[in-house]
Amino acid sequence: MAKVGLIMGSKSDIDIVKECMNTLDAFGMEYDVTVSSAHRTPERTVRWAEDADKKGYVAIAAFAGAAAHLAGVVASKTNVPVIAVPIAATALGGMDSLLSSVQMPGGIPVATMAIGKAGAKNAALFACQIAARSDKAVYEKLEKYRETMRDAVIRDDESLRNILGK
Amino acid sequence: MAKVGLIMGSKSDIDIVKECMNTLDAFGMEYDVTVSSAHRTPERTVRWAEDADKKGYVAIAAFAGAAAHLAGVVASKTNVPVIAVPIAATALGGMDSLLSSVQMPGGIPVATMAIGKAGAKNAALFACQIAARSDKAVYEKLEKYRETMRDAVIRDDESLRNILGK
Amino acid sequence: MAKVGLIMGSKSDIDIVKECMNTLDAFGMEYDVTVSSAHRTPERTVRWAEDADKKGYVAIAAFAGAAAHLAGVVASKTNVPVIAVPIAATALGGMDSLLSSVQMPGGIPVATMAIGKAGAKNAALFACQIAARSDKAVYEKLEKYRETMRDAVIRDDESLRNILGK
Amino acid sequence: MAKVGLIMGSKSDIDIVKECMNTLDAFGMEYDVTVSSAHRTPERTVRWAEDADKKGYVAIAAFAGAAAHLAGVVASKTNVPVIAVPIAATALGGMDSLLSSVQMPGGIPVATMAIGKAGAKNAALFACQIAARSDKAVYEKLEKYRETMRDAVIRDDESLRNILGK
Amino acid sequence: MAKVGLIMGSKSDIDIVKECMNTLDAFGMEYDVTVSSAHRTPERTVRWAEDADKKGYVAIAAFAGAAAHLAGVVASKTNVPVIAVPIAATALGGMDSLLSSVQMPGGIPVATMAIGKAGAKNAALFACQIAARSDKAVYEKLEKYRETMRDAVIRDDESLRNILGK
Amino acid sequence: MAKVGLIMGSKSDIDIVKECMNTLDAFGMEYDVTVSSAHRTPERTVRWAEDADKKGYVAIAAFAGAAAHLAGVVASKTNVPVIAVPIAATALGGMDSLLSSVQMPGGIPVATMAIGKAGAKNAALFACQIAARSDKAVYEKLEKYRETMRDAVIRDDESLRNILGK
Amino acid sequence: MAKVGLIMGSKSDIDIVKECMNTLDAFGMEYDVTVSSAHRTPERTVRWAEDADKKGYVAIAAFAGAAAHLAGVVASKTNVPVIAVPIAATALGGMDSLLSSVQMPGGIPVATMAIGKAGAKNAALFACQIAARSDKAVYEKLEKYRETMRDAVIRDDESLRNILGK
Amino acid sequence: MAKVGLIMGSKSDIDIVKECMNTLDAFGMEYDVTVSSAHRTPERTVRWAEDADKKGYVAIAAFAGAAAHLAGVVASKTNVPVIAVPIAATALGGMDSLLSSVQMPGGIPVATMAIGKAGAKNAALFACQIAARSDKAVYEKLEKYRETMRDAVIRDDESLRNILGK
Repeated sequence: MAKVGLIMGSKSDIDIVKECMNTLDAFGMEYDVTVSSAHRTPERTVRWAEDADKKGYVAIAAFAGAAAHLAGVVASKTNVPVIAVPIAATALGGMDSLLSSVQMPGGIPVATMAIGKAGAKNAALFACQIAARSDKAVYEKLEKYRETMRDAVIRDDESLRNILGK
Repeated sequence: MAKVGLIMGSKSDIDIVKECMNTLDAFGMEYDVTVSSAHRTPERTVRWAEDADKKGYVAIAAFAGAAAHLAGVVASKTNVPVIAVPIAATALGGMDSLLSSVQMPGGIPVATMAIGKAGAKNAALFACQIAARSDKAVYEKLEKYRETMRDAVIRDDESLRNILGK
Repeated sequence: MAKVGLIMGSKSDIDIVKECMNTLDAFGMEYDVTVSSAHRTPERTVRWAEDADKKGYVAIAAFAGAAAHLAGVVASKTNVPVIAVPIAATALGGMDSLLSSVQMPGGIPVATMAIGKAGAKNAALFACQIAARSDKAVYEKLEKYRETMRDAVIRDDESLRNILGK
Repeated sequence: MAKVGLIMGSKSDIDIVKECMNTLDAFGMEYDVTVSSAHRTPERTVRWAEDADKKGYVAIAAFAGAAAHLAGVVASKTNVPVIAVPIAATALGGMDSLLSSVQMPGGIPVATMAIGKAGAKNAALFACQIAARSDKAVYEKLEKYRETMRDAVIRDDESLRNILGK
Repeated sequence: MAKVGLIMGSKSDIDIVKECMNTLDAFGMEYDVTVSSAHRTPERTVRWAEDADKKGYVAIAAFAGAAAHLAGVVASKTNVPVIAVPIAATALGGMDSLLSSVQMPGGIPVATMAIGKAGAKNAALFACQIAARSDKAVYEKLEKYRETMRDAVIRDDESLRNILGK
Repeated sequence: MAKVGLIMGSKSDIDIVKECMNTLDAFGMEYDVTVSSAHRTPERTVRWAEDADKKGYVAIAAFAGAAAHLAGVVASKTNVPVIAVPIAATALGGMDSLLSSVQMPGGIPVATMAIGKAGAKNAALFACQIAARSDKAVYEKLEKYRETMRDAVIRDDESLRNILGK
Repeated sequence: MAKVGLIMGSKSDIDIVKECMNTLDAFGMEYDVTVSSAHRTPERTVRWAEDADKKGYVAIAAFAGAAAHLAGVVASKTNVPVIAVPIAATALGGMDSLLSSVQMPGGIPVATMAIGKAGAKNAALFACQIAARSDKAVYEKLEKYRETMRDAVIRDDESLRNILGK
Repeated sequence: MAKVGLIMGSKSDIDIVKECMNTLDAFGMEYDVTVSSAHRTPERTVRWAEDADKKGYVAIAAFAGAAAHLAGVVASKTNVPVIAVPIAATALGGMDSLLSSVQMPGGIPVATMAIGKAGAKNAALFACQIAARSDKAVYEKLEKYRETMRDAVIRDDESLRNILGK
């Protein structure tokens, strides 16, 4: 079973990370969660990244705010695909963590998602899409999920028309 | 053999896309390249996205500038992982294409790389990392590539010391 | 009677859309409202755009936040004038939806209004201005509306002077 | 025959305006061009705006850089639809003219296009779309133009494949 | 007695304007206050600006948010010095009104203060500085005001040391 | 005769300052020019500011790039009106000098003009407007200047029409 | 014993400054605290800076918001290392104080920390790092602090796993 | 003799680093220079940082562009004061490297200088200021340097007056 490694720079990011965990749960994906900082626990973060392959992670999602170096530091130590979720943790509204994550120099890719909860959910879905390359069941769940999203939009549309009497 | 689908919104983006192609070539990855616009050839783009799975793409890299909708439009039609490379094509220096690519709402993930050539190279490497999940040879090339990068930095360091006489 | 097509990417945008609907109501303009996402219901959005002409829409107003592709996707499928209303739905305060809407590449125009409620009201007025090209009654209402705005400013001025005793 | 009113804040904007004129020419649209500044010739600009209706303009395109007040000042004097084209004329790369144009308060709509040449071309196309509401010939040219754009993308795609030998 | 003309684009800006009025009151400066919009009451705003000289205004302070054209429109009609106070009235936190005010093209100066209350207070002080060129009493009050500010900082410093026991 | 004090943080700003000097020359205004840095020659800058009044400056124009503290430092030492001209001297295109100049806290006003040459010209005109409060001749030149600007726009308009054959 | 000089532009910044004081307390560092403004008490600020050396400050931390000139003004008068902590005090979320602090021209260094509380804590730690160059005890406390931080992250990780049942 | 450790993420940053080296040379400071990347040679960078103390570095200057993680990664492994010099290496003009450097979370300080050459020179001066705490000779050179800067400004002022004939 494909497993995803989740790493967050601070326990205070848990509300955002939950969005990712819930989505992975919905897809029956396994995952590990760890709190480890690029700066406050650098060796631990590096070891975690070095073990990513052994643990069979299909992908890693790294959550960090401010000068968000976590995804980059992890990506520098593994060839498991690394997904960054920037978090709006400062007065700059997430622009700092977004640019720190996405503007990686050539050679060490980090796949950046949107700031905050939307990004956390999409990190889960993107990990599922990677897993789905070799896991038919996940692939079918993804296709089904699209239908569910579509149906939810249609239901929203209907309920809105009812409210508006149109 | 894993194959990557490259799609660019305009032929003028070719210099950026080349960076991606050269990197894929270096890893022996196959790829298709197409010019197709989210706005000027929407049906064609949609059909291309719908066929991505059939063509066995392990990942898609979408290149676009300005209001860069290409990656999002492609991602809305396939569960093949979609990587966006924003291009600095306007007076706003790529901030427009970056935000149009990375700030995807929850449900449809797009994995965004850095603006321009660094992002194009990393899109190739990230596609390789996805392929490497089930292709030992690509994995080993990625590991080797890291060594090559490391050696290049060391050589740069040495040549610099020589120049500086230190 | 001129009709306007309103499309919003998510039901949660309804508070902004209401501002547009109320203004259209005040001008006796007809309108359809639909919830349809560029990414979660792409076929539905495309079909809706393809039918815009048949339904006789004089203009379309598309409401979306984050990486706001909705207006662009609709505009790629119709020659009915498309007006975008960016919504501040993320940590970036609407800068993402503004740039995703306004920076359209040459060939597919999208007429962008201000972020949020001011933009929603102005989308309605702009649709009325388009309708007014061939509908004398709407034109006169627009001229009257200007007078009403002017009188409201004058009343505001008077009430302020009274409060200030000037 | 539908006519468009073009107004530019400074003669130095002519290169951008030409992009609009050429597109209007291609659609057989008539247009007037004037240089008139919101600040240096305010009465002239106001009179020009007041006459817009009489001259039968189907739409107005206003071109200005820096603190771009031109479109707003024109829009405050007419109910002819006003399209703004922000120009990158300062050290801030057009962000100043974009925000000065697009963030209009509720009541006076200004339809803003992209910064620079892409916006100038799209202003022309958008004016054509408005004209096309009552002019079948323009409508057909717009539909034809879409085909031409589509074919150009396909030709670009083919020439690229030839070059790449793919 | 020197008089200042205050003009605000919307009655909702009154809280900011009050900061200016209170400061003018403290200096015994006379002032007129009016609500008049660059866009919703353009003629009225223009007439008000044309009369500025006759009314003997030593300076004008113009308060506006969003695409803040008010100061520019007033300045285009008078050679009385115009001071702009940008107001944070939209999702963009005042960056729109700041750039719309400060980036005036060469020929029509607008003296821009900080966004919001700090700017409103400084607009009053700056008007006093202009008045002080020919009014010794105001000049002395300004010099006195500096002492008062200085003393307030010193008192703040002392009270802080007391609290901290330092 | 009214005199203006010009102070620039670095000799390299002279091209921008020239724009101000030329405009003052055109109005027959006298001026002093000094190079003095807020940081590299703080005492000299402070002394210069303290003498501003004695020298009879009707206004001061301070030119600086990067973290532009010059206008604020000067304004902290005089009640002569201080005008800031931000200069685009770094990779941030003048946004740094603009915000360092305009966002002054309440108590010490700095009147900020546009970044660069437009701002330098407007600083001169604004100083003239202040001088014109008590100097009829300058006032009349300002009124005349407006006519000249207006005529120049009209000539630009005519020459453009000739070129375009319209 | 090494001492640090803390200077804040306004008493209202005390909540941010406290973060710095608490950290210095934890390291047994002595410090002076003063409220003194670059603009409202310029002489006092200059004298304070001139005395920094005599008072034996190992470093200075300057706290200011808006157009934050305080650190630069202090740095212009002393060769004691100056650390700036930008404060988010305006509608621009601290971008103004960040750029006013960090973009210092060549010649007068100011070491800028993050906006707000994170920066205030880091200013204290950075001052300790400077002190530690010649104070073994502080150095050892810094090394110990790293361990404490590391252990706190590990405890956070454990408590999270317990909550998640993982 | 105090020594400074210089580390740059890429050999292409050498032009910026030279500015720092030249300034250190002028102060007779010793320094080591290395090319080592946070991402491409992470172990090497970590080892370099771990040895910083042993090598007796009084300070470290880290030069990096794009998502500039280098200073943060180094700072996470040493209590030697770390100074960051952001480099404008991408389409975003250095805003990415600035925010990646300066917005460090609480616990791991990084002292950020201006983007580019001004920051490189100031990094050298700031390292000298740290060294000067215990090295009288460096302190005196710093005081002398201030005089030199002051004299250069005065000479610039004189030469300008000569040119202007004032």
